[in-house]
Formats: sequence, C-alpha cells, structure tokens
Amino acid sequence: MHKIFYIAVGNELLNYKTNRYIPIISRKLQEIGAELKGEITVGDDVKQLITSIDFASKNSNLIIITGGLGPTKDDITRDAISKYLNLPLIFSKKVEKILSKYGDVKNDEYLKNQCMVIKNAIIIENEFGTAQGEIIKSKGKVYILLPGPLNEWQPMWKKVTTYIKKGKKIFSSTIKIADLTESEVEKIIYPKIKDFLGSINYNILAGPNIVELNFTSESKKLLQKLEEEISKLISKNIYSTKDEKLEEVVGKILTEKRLTLSTAESCTGGLLSSKITDIPGSSKYYLGGINAYSNEMKSKILGVKKETLLNYGAVSKETAIEMAIGVKKLIKSDCSIAITGIAGPTGGTKQKPVGTVFIAVLFGKRIDVVKKEFKNRDRSYIKNASSNTALWMLYKMIK
Amino acid sequence: MHKIFYIAVGNELLNYKTNRYIPIISRKLQEIGAELKGEITVGDDVKQLITSIDFASKNSNLIIITGGLGPTKDDITRDAISKYLNLPLIFSKKVEKILSKYGDVKNDEYLKNQCMVIKNAIIIENEFGTAQGEIIKSKGKVYILLPGPLNEWQPMWKKVTTYIKKGKKIFSSTIKIADLTESEVEKIIYPKIKDFLGSINYNILAGPNIVELNFTSESKKLLQKLEEEISKLISKNIYSTKDEKLEEVVGKILTEKRLTLSTAESCTGGLLSSKITDIPGSSKYYLGGINAYSNEMKSKILGVKKETLLNYGAVSKETAIEMAIGVKKLIKSDCSIAITGIAGPTGGTKQKPVGTVFIAVLFGKRIDVVKKEFKNRDRSYIKNASSNTALWMLYKMIK
Repeated sequence: MHKIFYIAVGNELLNYKTNRYIPIISRKLQEIGAELKGEITVGDDVKQLITSIDFASKNSNLIIITGGLGPTKDDITRDAISKYLNLPLIFSKKVEKILSKYGDVKNDEYLKNQCMVIKNAIIIENEFGTAQGEIIKSKGKVYILLPGPLNEWQPMWKKVTTYIKKGKKIFSSTIKIADLTESEVEKIIYPKIKDFLGSINYNILAGPNIVELNFTSESKKLLQKLEEEISKLISKNIYSTKDEKLEEVVGKILTEKRLTLSTAESCTGGLLSSKITDIPGSSKYYLGGINAYSNEMKSKILGVKKETLLNYGAVSKETAIEMAIGVKKLIKSDCSIAITGIAGPTGGTKQKPVGTVFIAVLFGKRIDVVKKEFKNRDRSYIKNASSNTALWMLYKMIK
Repeated sequence: MHKIFYIAVGNELLNYKTNRYIPIISRKLQEIGAELKGEITVGDDVKQLITSIDFASKNSNLIIITGGLGPTKDDITRDAISKYLNLPLIFSKKVEKILSKYGDVKNDEYLKNQCMVIKNAIIIENEFGTAQGEIIKSKGKVYILLPGPLNEWQPMWKKVTTYIKKGKKIFSSTIKIADLTESEVEKIIYPKIKDFLGSINYNILAGPNIVELNFTSESKKLLQKLEEEISKLISKNIYSTKDEKLEEVVGKILTEKRLTLSTAESCTGGLLSSKITDIPGSSKYYLGGINAYSNEMKSKILGVKKETLLNYGAVSKETAIEMAIGVKKLIKSDCSIAITGIAGPTGGTKQKPVGTVFIAVLFGKRIDVVKKEFKNRDRSYIKNASSNTALWMLYKMIK
C-alpha cells in the first residue's frame, strides 16, 4: 500500500489554530487506496521545515505539504524544497499567465514572487488564490505542494490524485457499542480479532459509556466476516454499525414507529434534551422536557411525592421513576426518560458518591430503571455518560 | 527559550479524528515561557512511534506524548519509549495503590497491565482514568507521557510543569467579547494593535457569537497598556478579561446578588440549560427550565396564548416574551430567559429563514427582547450562538 506523509506548515498551527485537514486528507487518500502514515506540523522556519521534509522523505515516497506558498516573507515552503532537493527556483511563464487576472504581474512584486516555482515542477492551477500548486519528482520521491486554505486546495485535489500511485481500495467498518467499558469490549473481542490481525487494522475509541470500534482492510470479505463474528459476541450492546450517533439511531426508531418522547432531567440539566434536539427533524418525535434542578420543581411540576423526596432523597430510584411518570403524564408522550444524580464535584456522600445516577425509562406501561456509578469522573463525563445510558435504555425498549 | 516537541499517538488521529490539543498545549506552554517547536501525529505502530520519538529527541530536549497509555493491545507508547530508551517496564506498587479504587488489581489483567511503567519514571497521578502519567529523564532529555483524553491530562498539567524548564516569563492577557463578529472586532482593534506588533503577539478566536482575543508579551506593562486601550474601544461588548466562560460569569453575578434563574427553550432544546448547569454550584441559582419543543407545551405549560401562536407564530418576539413570562411565573425565579427560533436545516421561510431566533430576558419587571439572524450557519452553531446571546443579554441586565 502506498504510504503517505503530510506536512502542515504555519506558525498559527503551532499556536492557536486547529488543523482540521488531517481527517480530510486521510479520507481522500483512502478513497484512492492510499494511506496516511504520519503528519508533522511545523512553523514558518526554513531550517525546521527542511528537517521535517528530510524526516518525511526517509519514511515515505510521497509527501504532501500544505501552506507556506503565499507571496509574503513568512511563506517558506518553496524555499525549503528548493534547498532540500537542490533545485533552483525559476520564473514560470505559465504561472504568469494564470496570475494575469489579478493584475500586472511584471509590475507587482507580490505577483512576480508567486511566479517563482521549483525547476521542472508540474503546476496545478489554483482557481481561488494566487498560490499555485506544484508537483515535484526527485530521487524516486514525489512532493505535492498545496496552498493552505481548504477552499483553495480542495478544488485542486482531483488533479493532484493523478500523481498519486493508486493502491488497492481500502474498506472500513464501524461497530458502535453502549454500556460497556473499553477494556470490557476488548476482553470480549480480542480473542476473535487476533486471528484477523495482519490483514485487518483496528482501533477502539472510548466515549462516555459508549465505545466505538473501527476496522480497515483491503479485503471487504474479511471485514464482513469479522464484523459478523464480533457482532455475535457483543450483539447485546451494539447500537449501530454505521457512522451515526446514538441519539440519531433512537430518533430513527421513534420516527419509524411514530412514537413521541419527553424528558425529565435533574443532574444532566438539559444535556439529554440538547443531544436529542441536535438531530435535524427531532421535532417530529421529541415534544419537550422539564429540567427540574430544584426539588420544588420536581414535586410541583413533575408531581414527585414529597414523601418520596423525604424518604428516599432526590437522587433515588423512586424519584427517578416518579419523574418519568410525571413528565409522561404532563407532556402526554408515548415514552419518557428521567435522570437524577450527583454530577459533582461536591454533593456526594458515602452512600451516594459523586457519579451516582438513577435513570428511569418508560414506554407504555413498561418501566426500566437503573442505578449507575460513574466513579472518579468529572461533571462533564457524568452528564454525558448519563445521557448516553438513558438513550441506550430507550433504544433497547423500543427497537 | 525552552523549545518543546509534541507527539500525538493514535490511529484515529490519522483517520477521522481532529486533534484539538495543539493549541491547548501551546497556550499552556506559553504561560510558563516555553514554546511548542513542532508536532508529529503517528498511528498505533511501535516502529513508527520509535522513529518519531527519535526525530523529536534530535530536535528538542523535551518531548510531550499524549495517547497510547491505555490498557489495551493498541496502546503502545510505553512499549515504544521502553525500547527506544532501552529501559525496562517494571511493576509499580505506587500505581497499584492508585488503581485499587477501580478493583482487585492482582486479579484484573487490564489493571495489572496499567501498573507496568518505565523504570525510574516519575508517576503523575491520573484522577479520572486508569492510565497514569509518566515522566522519564534519560540522556539529557525529558519525556512526558500523558493519557489521551483531555479531561484526564488537563488536571495533571500543573504537576507536569514542574518538570519543564521555565523560560523568561511570558505574560498573557485575554479579552472575551460577545455579540460581535471576528471581522467586526478586528476592524475596531487593528489600528490600535498595529503599534504594538513586534513586542506583542496576538490571536483572535471566533466562537458562536463570541470572540476571544489573546495577547502574549514579555512585557507586562505593554500588555496592560494594550488591554486598557482595547477595552476602551470595545468596552460595550466585553464580558470578561479572565479565562472564564460566559455562563460562569453570569453564574457568579447571580450568586453574588442572590438571584434565581429559569429558562424556556424551543430551538436550543436544552443547550442553554445544559451550559448553565455545566458550572459547579449552579444549583444555587438555577431552578430549572422547560424545553418546550411542541406548540402544545408552549401553550399548556408555559401559558403562551393560542392567539399569539396563531397570529405571530411560534418563532416571534411575542411568543418569546410570553414564554419568558410563563416560565418565570411557573418556576418563581427572579430572572428568566426564553429562546425560540429556527435551527434548521429545514423549517425556514422567506420571512423567517433558518437562523432566525428571538430571545427574551426578564429580570423583575424589565423585559429585553432581540431578533437575531445567524445566516448560513448550521444547527449546532445556531443553538450555541442563541444560547450565548441569551446569556450575554442576561449579563447586561443584572451586572
């Protein structure tokens, strides 16, 4: 397989700006059967860029560089390539012609500067900016220089790919899992995956009470076989084998079965509701929710009995169930979810430490309720894990 | 200045996941007078990681590595460091003690695995996960190994910095601005900033209807002068000059003035409420909220008049005001916020395109209401920008 290295050039990328190009380039490479092997981010410094080009050249046959092609003093990519490959910069008549739409090239220092290209470079025209792309072949390696802005280099990509040796198409597959930890998942699946290693790459990604498995392979058949075998092992906890969120999957089922949903949240404080309404079209099935942060709201609006709050506390199975019953009645939905717990960092006790959460889910006359203990976790994790667990409980009930 | 190299480990970072840590690490290093010199992203491959560590070691005296410290087979950072530095992995009793809260270490393969650390490594305790941080000094270089998730390594950072040689202190200053766009802000401040360039670095970061300005300089005096001058130019829109969120600032004022708050959300679907309750201690001032996604909830629970919905529509100034009045009455709070709008991607009309949002804020007998048009924005931006605008309106009212 053709392995490719990517160098991102720019001081801003080592300071405040997030480089969002890696996943974009990676996906584009996968489409043509190539693979991103590594990436370096480097500032606007010729020496350091040369060092990085040297490293990339030793580890790959094809190097893509974005940024540093502009007309100003801090644009150093052509300079670095010229020095590293010992190839001179020459004035390109082709680029002069392209740039003529921007002004009188001969009398504009910046435009004239942009006409200087690496000797023998193939020019890739940039329709949306003055920095042209260049492809340089030297000593068995290929260097692809592209301008920094995405809207400039993306339209050039198709032309670029003709210079990348195509490999075999790479297939990918995803399994999305809820309510197991990363190590629980691996314990179950590793004995199976072991047989496939070598022909299949995999990675495992942990989120708040959810886990994502990703596999890639040149063999679609092998990938399908693995997916089938793993699905068997872990079927009880899979919510999707596509690139979709749990709230999206739940939304699809609610839409399909024409069911409506309401929520009653305490410790998650509206996060569950916000996740549900992140999905376009959620107004079809989501009627709304009550974020009952105070006990008074729990009793006055949701109808949780005062004795329940007194005897069991606001964070209890009993309160969760009464919240779910209350919101379902109030909003007249087919299903309802209630969450109450201690998100921390304070408010924990020995019996109910930070991370203790009760979740109740109702559908028709069925009630499911669980107690979760998200130990040693921060507020954001506890809110997210509680919301995901609630969605997962609803998924199991209505699917 | 101490120049530092950063290595990010993980197949997902060369595939689908964006690495958002570079700007965070860069900022944290600047605070202690150090500078990020370069970054490498590498997959879960021992050989490639060793090659990358070698490159980083040749270009820097201090290398920070995030990721690959988990208990599963694809976690290869300790292995690579062990091989590169020729230092064995040994069982750490200290880590065993830390991990005992997660279970019986001796009888859990994964926990036992997590106890294996580089010989002579200094252990940095991870309060929110099983992968501990490690600091290794070898051949004049320092290697800092941190777990992948931000919420795990961020709390460990303070301890880490004691092992980074401090440079000349760099001072930083932040100005947080609401309700202006990035280019509006730059237009106002650039003529002033121009005089300071050279001795002051600045960057400007745009969020959903908020903008953050960051300045760094070796001169505290210059920085203060610039901050004063810029504050004068833009004072009407500043909500903080500290590293704090808008919901945090609002929370402090509510706490200080002993005021309570309730919310009524339509298009933001609970996001405003979730932001408010992200702040520890928010239960002191936030009583709760109603996420009224359906019209029936708006009228039945919040008491929005049916004629209002009929004559002006659910997305209107009139409905926003009645929602705010309704929720304030229902929950008996001192202040209330109501948001109604079109988050898209569908549901827009010519008169009310996607991104049209009405926000009403009440405090005592005062009412503020605005119409916003977040044009050409996606659902997530519209939800976030609406929530931020609402918080900003409340800030101005109660400060």
